[in-house]
Amino acid sequence: MGINWINSTELSSFNKLVGLKDQVVLKEVMSGENGAERVRNYSAPMAGGLAYNYAAKQVDDAVIDALADFASEAQLLEKYEALYNGEMINTGEKRLVLHQLTRGQLGEDVIADGVNKREFYAGVQADVAEFAKKVHAGEITNGAGEKFTTAVQIGIGGSDLGPRAMYLALENWAKAEGLFKMRAEFISNVDPDDASAVLNGIDVEHALFILVSKSGTTLETLTNEAFVKNALKSAGLDPSKHMIAVTSQTSPLAASDEYMAAFFMDDYIGGRYSSTSAVGGAVLSLAFGPEVFERFLAGAAEADALAKTPDIRQNAALLDALIGVYERNALGYGATAVLPYSQALSRFPAHLQQLDMESNGKSVNRFGEPIDYVTGPIIFGEPGTNGQHSFYQLLHQGTDIIPLQFVGFSDSQIGNDVDIQGSTSQQKLGANVAAQIVAFACGKDDENLNKKFDGGRPSSIIIGKQLTPEALGSLLAHFENKVMFQGFAWNLNSFDQEGVQLGKVLAKRVLAHETDGALAVYSELLGI
Amino acid sequence: MGINWINSTELSSFNKLVGLKDQVVLKEVMSGENGAERVRNYSAPMAGGLAYNYAAKQVDDAVIDALADFASEAQLLEKYEALYNGEMINTGEKRLVLHQLTRGQLGEDVIADGVNKREFYAGVQADVAEFAKKVHAGEITNGAGEKFTTAVQIGIGGSDLGPRAMYLALENWAKAEGLFKMRAEFISNVDPDDASAVLNGIDVEHALFILVSKSGTTLETLTNEAFVKNALKSAGLDPSKHMIAVTSQTSPLAASDEYMAAFFMDDYIGGRYSSTSAVGGAVLSLAFGPEVFERFLAGAAEADALAKTPDIRQNAALLDALIGVYERNALGYGATAVLPYSQALSRFPAHLQQLDMESNGKSVNRFGEPIDYVTGPIIFGEPGTNGQHSFYQLLHQGTDIIPLQFVGFSDSQIGNDVDIQGSTSQQKLGANVAAQIVAFACGKDDENLNKKFDGGRPSSIIIGKQLTPEALGSLLAHFENKVMFQGFAWNLNSFDQEGVQLGKVLAKRVLAHETDGALAVYSELLGI
Repeated sequence: MGINWINSTELSSFNKLVGLKDQVVLKEVMSGENGAERVRNYSAPMAGGLAYNYAAKQVDDAVIDALADFASEAQLLEKYEALYNGEMINTGEKRLVLHQLTRGQLGEDVIADGVNKREFYAGVQADVAEFAKKVHAGEITNGAGEKFTTAVQIGIGGSDLGPRAMYLALENWAKAEGLFKMRAEFISNVDPDDASAVLNGIDVEHALFILVSKSGTTLETLTNEAFVKNALKSAGLDPSKHMIAVTSQTSPLAASDEYMAAFFMDDYIGGRYSSTSAVGGAVLSLAFGPEVFERFLAGAAEADALAKTPDIRQNAALLDALIGVYERNALGYGATAVLPYSQALSRFPAHLQQLDMESNGKSVNRFGEPIDYVTGPIIFGEPGTNGQHSFYQLLHQGTDIIPLQFVGFSDSQIGNDVDIQGSTSQQKLGANVAAQIVAFACGKDDENLNKKFDGGRPSSIIIGKQLTPEALGSLLAHFENKVMFQGFAWNLNSFDQEGVQLGKVLAKRVLAHETDGALAVYSELLGI
Repeated sequence: MGINWINSTELSSFNKLVGLKDQVVLKEVMSGENGAERVRNYSAPMAGGLAYNYAAKQVDDAVIDALADFASEAQLLEKYEALYNGEMINTGEKRLVLHQLTRGQLGEDVIADGVNKREFYAGVQADVAEFAKKVHAGEITNGAGEKFTTAVQIGIGGSDLGPRAMYLALENWAKAEGLFKMRAEFISNVDPDDASAVLNGIDVEHALFILVSKSGTTLETLTNEAFVKNALKSAGLDPSKHMIAVTSQTSPLAASDEYMAAFFMDDYIGGRYSSTSAVGGAVLSLAFGPEVFERFLAGAAEADALAKTPDIRQNAALLDALIGVYERNALGYGATAVLPYSQALSRFPAHLQQLDMESNGKSVNRFGEPIDYVTGPIIFGEPGTNGQHSFYQLLHQGTDIIPLQFVGFSDSQIGNDVDIQGSTSQQKLGANVAAQIVAFACGKDDENLNKKFDGGRPSSIIIGKQLTPEALGSLLAHFENKVMFQGFAWNLNSFDQEGVQLGKVLAKRVLAHETDGALAVYSELLGI
């Protein structure tokens, strides 16, 4: 059977789904023993020992059956298969989409540019691992023969957000496990104060800089590279003894002798999907050692394999994706809040914000034709319990309903804790997320309407024992696959980002002083 | 004339405003010489040398006149006057709202609890200043008589987000100006890994902890206090020689001898409005010296005074507020993205997220009666240019329109820069924000719809020369006053937060193991 790339509204299963409103009154289904039963049953396994619990979503068996029908009619699993077998899925840029191959082999061998791509990515990973080990062993050193102590990633967008979020997610875990090798820092913004502040805060003499740009032409990154090279020279250091590159083989950086080494990615890995390639691999392997990075990849690979599961109730990524479509297109919700109850995941919402909004924030289908339904939602979030003392007021009692994605773990990473008022901090953290789910779903009546909670505010939670490298890889790939399935469902190309181009063009015009009208006046007001 | 607290939809000027749709086609009004003229004219002065430019908002003189009529009929300036003259504005909690008095005297003397409140706050500020100077001079030391080198704020919500955002906003500026006194760190989350990681990263022996809790009963904060005290004792240190408190005079912390000093706030200063009280004052005065904190207060005080201006075109806070109401209630937009082109403002969006969403994310009016219009939007954001390489795709080409709030400065804070391809990094930063405004407003046609930009996406920009303490105080107070005016416009009580209570109650029940149904199963799954 061939694959039919078709707009959602042309599928009867989609239109049926969109008609299924007011199917579930959360307050009712989540009450009493039925509610308990629902929490026990509405759970799908995830990789890395996690589980996706969707009891507090506005779905029931009828809705899930409708989601399954839609998954089937829209051929979502077949499209995934086409993707990992190397079909040209990125229609806008005419590219394959191969980020899953950086962590495993899901289907047939994919041969492109004359090479087996799985072997290519695995080879790069082995090169990165070897390099990192030599740095840790003091075999690769700075110009004075001294060990590097800090890795500094220079990149923006996907070369920054994902790797930074992953680093922060594992930093304390690695320290607690005795696996921490090197501190990492990140320079991303073209704001000169970003690079200055990072450089002022490190020991430049023992810093290894990782320049990350697929094209080798990203203006912010090249500017920050020049900034760093200036600082190295000012300190009497040779930049070429302090810098490696992660780039594509065709980039101007690839063959330059200005870098100690170059590690390759390619056009088949989008920036926001690149945490498991050398883009994340170099900095994470340097920070925590290649073995930790391998465990992270193993979690992601397991998640990718699970996403092939035909039964939607056992396929967390597919289920999460389609519940999101139901919330967006049937229930009309415009945003999702990502709320990890784990300080280590402090920047995970910022990564998901890019992943989701840059992939599916689109108004044309994969053929560049207009569509007549809403697509990707706003994604935002902060860690709990912090968010509870901030924007949760609106989530509980505001005039719009915003679906919530919680994440929670039984165990902390560091393991240091105190018992206050009969419970540990980790127990308080878990108690809070459990309480929030039920508060949002069930609400509370009160004669004073100011103290009344309507409830009916849907959430899901991903639960695990501890945020380990495997669990983190699972989380990362879960959301990558969720976003991919949603893109398929909406018939989008989730792998280009034409929406970022116009700003670049106009900024260049400003810098060349080739402006008129409003742009000229804004430039003047900003002192350019 | 008495003040009439009345729902928006009962005012003819509001209903007229809501009817004014499709009034302005941004693409047209922002084109050519008319666009240039618009950028020159649609600007309102702000304190601290800033300006609020609203040329790229979907307003024209007719809309602004309608906003002015609404401001007048809704008596927004009279309500502001009532607030600063000490009327009981926080109807839910029956409290005055006096945060403006922490930085100046706007109207009549306010006498409450038997004291002149301006004198009270000014007195606390003087006490904080004296304490900070003694710490800097080595007159107040740790138990061993050594100088403190790090200040660590323990607080959550408003005791964390605002002060943290302000600290980060001025850290590099203070270093560049030679005014940096002490590093500051923040512990907020009840996640034990948050406190552990901060403690692992500092020299505890020379750390001064600032415990911030108005009530003295915030569970997260007391838990983290115990965590820190344990760590101090383990290091052989006396916690009472390392800790000060910022709290209310009636709190259990106020008279405790477990603190070196206690500085007071009161019930008339909401957490999210407390950055200019001792809540922000202690940590900022320790970090940068009391003179810098005073300059910050002066910027805020000037902004408060400007917010009294009757002409809406000269009153940036009022104008910004009402354009927001127009966007929310007439144009139907559900979110606003805050996009500072300044790495120093990296956490300013998180502060605004609390300020706005916790103040106006409500579905009942100030009397606890239901309302029939939407209120506060979602607030989210990240610094540019980082956001450009992340979620801007959706902002440009997504299916929903999201109004944007830019912030930009001509000069960096540190002043270190490089010239690459004919421009400095700071110029590139400014060029990008100018370009984005025009790209969002005007779009670009293209036969390939994937590369087409519809435009018509509204934004405003706050422009300044440099992010100084005065400019930061101005920014902070501008948004406080904007949110206040919006609350008045929607007839809300912007100063309580009943929406956070239910979660607290249920979490306590979990920790006491007094749960059944869904809550019991979630607790079990989370290992509690």
